[in-house]
Amino acid sequence: MRILQGSAGWVLMMLLCSPVLGGTDDDLLEILRDNKTLTPEQYEKIKNKQEEKARNRYRSKFRFGDEEGDFKLKVGGRLQVDGAVYDDNRDLGDGTEIRRARIELAAILYERWRVETSYDFAGDKTSVKDAWIGYTGIRSTLIRVGQFKEPFSLEELTSSRYITFMERALPNAFAPGRNIGAAVNFHGANSSFAAGVFGEGAGAARADGEGYAVTGRATFAPVAEVDRVVHFGIAGTHRVPEDQSQSVIFQSRPESHVTATNLVSTGTLGKTDSFNVLGLEAAAVFGPLSLQGEYMRTDVDRKGPGLTDATFDGGYAFVSWFLTGEIRPYSARRGIFGNVEPRRDFGPGGPGALELVARFSFLDLNDDPVRGGHEENITAAFNWYFNPRIRLFANYIHVMTDPVRGDNDSNVYQMRLQAFF
Amino acid sequence: MRILQGSAGWVLMMLLCSPVLGGTDDDLLEILRDNKTLTPEQYEKIKNKQEEKARNRYRSKFRFGDEEGDFKLKVGGRLQVDGAVYDDNRDLGDGTEIRRARIELAAILYERWRVETSYDFAGDKTSVKDAWIGYTGIRSTLIRVGQFKEPFSLEELTSSRYITFMERALPNAFAPGRNIGAAVNFHGANSSFAAGVFGEGAGAARADGEGYAVTGRATFAPVAEVDRVVHFGIAGTHRVPEDQSQSVIFQSRPESHVTATNLVSTGTLGKTDSFNVLGLEAAAVFGPLSLQGEYMRTDVDRKGPGLTDATFDGGYAFVSWFLTGEIRPYSARRGIFGNVEPRRDFGPGGPGALELVARFSFLDLNDDPVRGGHEENITAAFNWYFNPRIRLFANYIHVMTDPVRGDNDSNVYQMRLQAFF
Amino acid sequence: MRILQGSAGWVLMMLLCSPVLGGTDDDLLEILRDNKTLTPEQYEKIKNKQEEKARNRYRSKFRFGDEEGDFKLKVGGRLQVDGAVYDDNRDLGDGTEIRRARIELAAILYERWRVETSYDFAGDKTSVKDAWIGYTGIRSTLIRVGQFKEPFSLEELTSSRYITFMERALPNAFAPGRNIGAAVNFHGANSSFAAGVFGEGAGAARADGEGYAVTGRATFAPVAEVDRVVHFGIAGTHRVPEDQSQSVIFQSRPESHVTATNLVSTGTLGKTDSFNVLGLEAAAVFGPLSLQGEYMRTDVDRKGPGLTDATFDGGYAFVSWFLTGEIRPYSARRGIFGNVEPRRDFGPGGPGALELVARFSFLDLNDDPVRGGHEENITAAFNWYFNPRIRLFANYIHVMTDPVRGDNDSNVYQMRLQAFF
Repeated sequence: MRILQGSAGWVLMMLLCSPVLGGTDDDLLEILRDNKTLTPEQYEKIKNKQEEKARNRYRSKFRFGDEEGDFKLKVGGRLQVDGAVYDDNRDLGDGTEIRRARIELAAILYERWRVETSYDFAGDKTSVKDAWIGYTGIRSTLIRVGQFKEPFSLEELTSSRYITFMERALPNAFAPGRNIGAAVNFHGANSSFAAGVFGEGAGAARADGEGYAVTGRATFAPVAEVDRVVHFGIAGTHRVPEDQSQSVIFQSRPESHVTATNLVSTGTLGKTDSFNVLGLEAAAVFGPLSLQGEYMRTDVDRKGPGLTDATFDGGYAFVSWFLTGEIRPYSARRGIFGNVEPRRDFGPGGPGALELVARFSFLDLNDDPVRGGHEENITAAFNWYFNPRIRLFANYIHVMTDPVRGDNDSNVYQMRLQAFF
Repeated sequence: MRILQGSAGWVLMMLLCSPVLGGTDDDLLEILRDNKTLTPEQYEKIKNKQEEKARNRYRSKFRFGDEEGDFKLKVGGRLQVDGAVYDDNRDLGDGTEIRRARIELAAILYERWRVETSYDFAGDKTSVKDAWIGYTGIRSTLIRVGQFKEPFSLEELTSSRYITFMERALPNAFAPGRNIGAAVNFHGANSSFAAGVFGEGAGAARADGEGYAVTGRATFAPVAEVDRVVHFGIAGTHRVPEDQSQSVIFQSRPESHVTATNLVSTGTLGKTDSFNVLGLEAAAVFGPLSLQGEYMRTDVDRKGPGLTDATFDGGYAFVSWFLTGEIRPYSARRGIFGNVEPRRDFGPGGPGALELVARFSFLDLNDDPVRGGHEENITAAFNWYFNPRIRLFANYIHVMTDPVRGDNDSNVYQMRLQAFF
Repeated sequence: MRILQGSAGWVLMMLLCSPVLGGTDDDLLEILRDNKTLTPEQYEKIKNKQEEKARNRYRSKFRFGDEEGDFKLKVGGRLQVDGAVYDDNRDLGDGTEIRRARIELAAILYERWRVETSYDFAGDKTSVKDAWIGYTGIRSTLIRVGQFKEPFSLEELTSSRYITFMERALPNAFAPGRNIGAAVNFHGANSSFAAGVFGEGAGAARADGEGYAVTGRATFAPVAEVDRVVHFGIAGTHRVPEDQSQSVIFQSRPESHVTATNLVSTGTLGKTDSFNVLGLEAAAVFGPLSLQGEYMRTDVDRKGPGLTDATFDGGYAFVSWFLTGEIRPYSARRGIFGNVEPRRDFGPGGPGALELVARFSFLDLNDDPVRGGHEENITAAFNWYFNPRIRLFANYIHVMTDPVRGDNDSNVYQMRLQAFF
């Protein structure tokens, strides 16, 4: 206590100003209040500021740079460790894997410009994920150039850190994912619009030239409150493969990634002039209960003797219920869901959040003469969010495939431990 | 205003001391001056300090660690997104690519030791770029061990963040680039000297053993003011390939990297005892106008029945003019050019800097019996520097190749958006 | 001095609070003491705090986040540059290489959870090293899931930053290294226990399914003082390869990594039902002198016509002596050695630490009918620690192999410059 007398306030200040992100000491604050150096109002003010800071820290990535936000760096990482056991006579291959292992660097470079890069090293392979430069100087608008996810599919656009199941549903086989291109995002209060032009097949080891794609998505949320959400979305993409190969392939693993086997696959579809994918989305949140579903339909336009156009489709619907009362956070401006955080009163030291989920999904890759197979999956799962950055997934999937590739029901048991920062 | 009364100064201090890089609030400073807490002189002093800090931040990478510089970490990144269209009948392959996507970690470890590492992940391939440990304990001297650029060629040594055109000129085919070795850099007031020994072919998947190379460069700037520069440079490298392969190859893409095609190439030159490359450099800056040129000549010493020595050469010259008045920054101590920053009065929120540039380059890989081809390129281009870290490149290249590999003029239209931090 | 008068204290505080990690100025502190703003006791207190901070900084990695440690990020890196010359008639391939080039991101995510990831890019190849999520909420216990080193072998578990010789000894061929799994570490005051279950062959490009392994290690240090240590350890692993391949291979380079040649190798041992490895460890520290040795024995259980079980073994012993008086730091709680730091009175600007070391190692891969070879190595070496983060290695190795793969003695001369942060 002697430290607080007289000019020793200097010492106090030095301690308070200790150049560590975080800082000011609770005990000291109370002492200052108790010995009247601070008025109760001042004490409250500082205290509140501290708590807000703590909450933000709790939420935010590691950020450095200006508070004002005109020059900022985020260093992030992501790790997902998976294990899977297959009850199947096709030998899908039980085992473990590092599903995702990423380094993420994002920066704000002078207010209106942003750059985001993320790199995945899982499986000892390098994969560039996000790699884009964006301009935010126009109100409610983001213009991007580089590699990023094409605006298509609610589940695809939701970060792999935040998705509800270990793997996205079967129809994700139709979602274009990340490509190199340019796009514009625009949002209203309850709606979002995005459209862009992308290289088709740019990421792959293309021979000569690359195709192109035009993709767009619109979402609207007639209800968009914290605990009540109704979301509708529609997206479409028109894709023209490169001249030489003129090929495309649709396939899917059984919503499990440890195995390398695609139980359904069209095989390479040659002589593909172009193909179109249409996506419809709906989701609703009623407090701890939420529903989400998508339907996608692909029309492949093939030119050649004896070839006919082909149509494939797929869809999924799932229900999620937080036993512990959390609510899936929705961003109407982006038309996607975000990170679930265990409720404050449970806290970082609490038991966390528990979510029960069930999903039905199907993928139909049969359209004569293409016999890619038909698959239906039923998943029962739970998620245990220990804290906002650590989650345990447990998924049981019952897989039903039609006779094309061997009539067989499989059972998949898989778990994931995930951390990100 | 109430906040400033009495002991509430504590509160103010806490706000000012908020442990965020950046900080002190302009309004508060003015209030403090206006209510006489600060004298005008003190106000000026702090204000100036803040502005200097802002300028440095504007310039510097993200740095952490001691202000004193004896223990420091820099986290950096680089992203270049390219698109190219080719008007050519050889099907060079239009398309897009992530040209460079890098993570950079550099550290000062106790004053006199430095380590720099940078990794490129473009094209989903891992490539170690800089990876060296350096000692700076001797005045004006840097001693390095590891992988870094051999001291050869003004354009090669200028960072890919700062080069004037999207790709370095054709004769860059002769520049050794990065290899593992040891080198010493020394500088005078207006001059620089560098020499080193390197492994030849160490980076590639070599079979047994590796060759070696001795490389040196000297530069002199009789004029080295901010807005007036005259630079001369000379460099040489003597290279001995590994015993087994005894081979070397010289080739070049048409100053465009989206295509994978080398329009000129010597093919593998076997029985190569050794080869020497000589490089001459000249550059001049007259305010916003600057000129730069290099000439390189390679002599290959081949031993074998019916083999004769071969000589190849190449060169380039370019002119740059900043419509907005910026001046290319030259470092006489390193003999290279640095980052162009839009003029202060344009500022980060301003229109940025605009540079018009034109280049002629040639590469002659013909010397009987080797018929590697002869190429001449003319480039017209502009660069738009939105701010010191974001630049848009637009290049038009007219490519002329001799009949060896198909007589053909090509036109290349390419753009790049670049960000680094 | 005028700056300290009256309300100008504000200015002072702003300087002191300059939001830079590091900070408070020595001169200012002295001024404050001299003009009685601080009492001598207060001066001492702050001074001591600063010095402790400096020492920690000197030791710690670059860390960001809460001082309290409940939310923290470490950004680290590692670089090793090697050169080797071989005096050998088998053409081992002299040369240079980047031995290790790593980025490391580790975080504490809310007190009780940790995540560590490290990625190696040496040789332009991506390799995931550590990639685990850990829970530290149970006293003296660490529970981990992900990829990390199996608890086996003192030398293997000692970080490559801290090992005494450039390469671990020959019997390291038996150590399982990193695999994906789950493990528990527990420590007493002078003892450590670790056990886990891991995928066998999970990291490699496995076809279908993967094997498994159970591994455990216990260490005990009857003496565990700073300058006196006696360490004993025992470890075992039971490994069952995957059903399809049922194969395992044991081989080793000659304690030198620039060459890609394994002088001894069992070749692929098919029909391997399972194999067990036993490891014994002993080490002792007597001030600047220390001794360390390990013995490992592998029993391979093979089933098939004409196949018999096979037994291989290996061991090493080395002695280390610090001419400059440093002591190898031992952690009894983890049963491994840590980073050697030059003695304080030598300091970061001093000559550093000099260590002389010698090692004998052997590896016996002969057990009829398997003729994998027998190798014995004798190494004489020194390490020069310029500071706690920069070390120069110089190793001379005399390699003796039996006639199986060509009777030949080799001499290896190799050096490494290493930095990490």
